[in-house]
Amino acid sequence: MVQSYTEAPISKVTAASGVEYAYREVGAGGVPLVLLVHFRGNLDNWDPALVDALAQDRRVIAFDNTGVGGTSGTTPGTVAQMAADAIAFVEALDLDRVDVLGFSLGSFVAQEIALIRPALVRRLVLASSAPQGAPGMHGWAQWVIDAVGQAETAPAKMLDVFYTRSPESRKSGEAALGRMFTRSQLDTPTTWQTRQAQYDAVCAWGVPGFSLLERVTAIQAPVFVANGDSDPMILPRYSHLLAGLIPGAELRIYPDAAHGFLFQHHEEFAADVTRFLARPQTDERNEGV
Amino acid sequence: MVQSYTEAPISKVTAASGVEYAYREVGAGGVPLVLLVHFRGNLDNWDPALVDALAQDRRVIAFDNTGVGGTSGTTPGTVAQMAADAIAFVEALDLDRVDVLGFSLGSFVAQEIALIRPALVRRLVLASSAPQGAPGMHGWAQWVIDAVGQAETAPAKMLDVFYTRSPESRKSGEAALGRMFTRSQLDTPTTWQTRQAQYDAVCAWGVPGFSLLERVTAIQAPVFVANGDSDPMILPRYSHLLAGLIPGAELRIYPDAAHGFLFQHHEEFAADVTRFLARPQTDERNEGV
Repeated sequence: MVQSYTEAPISKVTAASGVEYAYREVGAGGVPLVLLVHFRGNLDNWDPALVDALAQDRRVIAFDNTGVGGTSGTTPGTVAQMAADAIAFVEALDLDRVDVLGFSLGSFVAQEIALIRPALVRRLVLASSAPQGAPGMHGWAQWVIDAVGQAETAPAKMLDVFYTRSPESRKSGEAALGRMFTRSQLDTPTTWQTRQAQYDAVCAWGVPGFSLLERVTAIQAPVFVANGDSDPMILPRYSHLLAGLIPGAELRIYPDAAHGFLFQHHEEFAADVTRFLARPQTDERNEGV
Repeated sequence: MVQSYTEAPISKVTAASGVEYAYREVGAGGVPLVLLVHFRGNLDNWDPALVDALAQDRRVIAFDNTGVGGTSGTTPGTVAQMAADAIAFVEALDLDRVDVLGFSLGSFVAQEIALIRPALVRRLVLASSAPQGAPGMHGWAQWVIDAVGQAETAPAKMLDVFYTRSPESRKSGEAALGRMFTRSQLDTPTTWQTRQAQYDAVCAWGVPGFSLLERVTAIQAPVFVANGDSDPMILPRYSHLLAGLIPGAELRIYPDAAHGFLFQHHEEFAADVTRFLARPQTDERNEGV
């Protein structure tokens, strides 16, 4: 059992679909926690400090979805296909019940997994998330997509999206970047094909449609919704929207934090997730209204 | 100018519709703040401690809507008509621009006023509110409507809805009730006709319809959404829903508080409302997304 995400080797597993998935895992015990990464992210885009904190008492698995990083195949252009591909990966690991933590685009995929394969998902963490069809969410602000959507990715520009302008937030962002890329075996960079297909999926997810807001009310798993208070990529109001739509959802907005709130506040966020995953099951859907 | 809501006499004004409205007012200066009260409430159901705090630097006006308490006419069974009637009252006072604070059923009416007469409303405070059509909101839980919907109203049962089970919350509830009814001139009690018509309106508001959630996105006035963390009458998740739907909305959830959070936390809530009403106008609708 590997003790730190920094030292975790890249493993491979081939799904029934024929796709060979790259993944890293740390920790052991309990229901495995599967991580779904952000736009253009690969295995290296998880802060080891966060992953290690989450893995204190459970198995945590990060993977590259189809066509991403070290995984074979072509990145699909829809969240629905990404969810199907993620399910294929989980099945390839012979897991039949997992917790899921989705971050940004990964949180859209996480919602979809919980909707199309509810029996698979025990609990759901949605970090920097938004429901499909939410108003005003069609694509990212021009400066945001300029910062993270160019052919050459620039860590300095990513800092502007993932962290606020406060010295504390920036410092934590630089520290997280340092932890992410201090490793001997880096993952394969994501391609322009992945970038284009994933942004297609993000834009499709944001096509407005108020009736689509009903979709998340079918999520049966308990949900923890989290975001930074200054996230420019997926506004915190969409986290409020999710918390308003999903009965019993927990919500936490972290202070002085942007898209990378979960890395900036990694200790607190990991503690919140750990508490959420361990809390006694209550049937909050039967609250009388 | 009357300095305390406890001493404010009941005034009357006749609208163009012929309805004679009962109202009380305190304070002076600035844009007047019009209060819209809860289910079965009349002029006596506003905590004087809250009204006086709000009236420190502005005119505050509470009134009985058509058919309610000391106002003539028949209580209508729709929020839309209640909004039209409230507008008629404001016009009868020769006011062309007001701030509006709606509480519970009054917050539904407040939303509707802002939607059908946007030019009238400068800023909007929605206390214990919910958007029309929100899921799971059709009528109140049986124990709640049992507590507040009987022919004979029982202050002790109302305490169960308006305050939590904590000693601090109950004590504040008893204190608020004491303040409300320590006055020489009480208002006319609300009738069973009012009860029935208002509950019809509450149930109609809660008929589920996700496409109706779009309505509040047309509210142009800045909005402050507030609720207690344990409100059994209008769950706090509907406040999150409003904050998620209305661009730039402020949200505050007050601790250890139920439907009467604004009386329990009257000092803090009045300070929050005062700050919100005084804050510089920013065009948060143009945030880039």
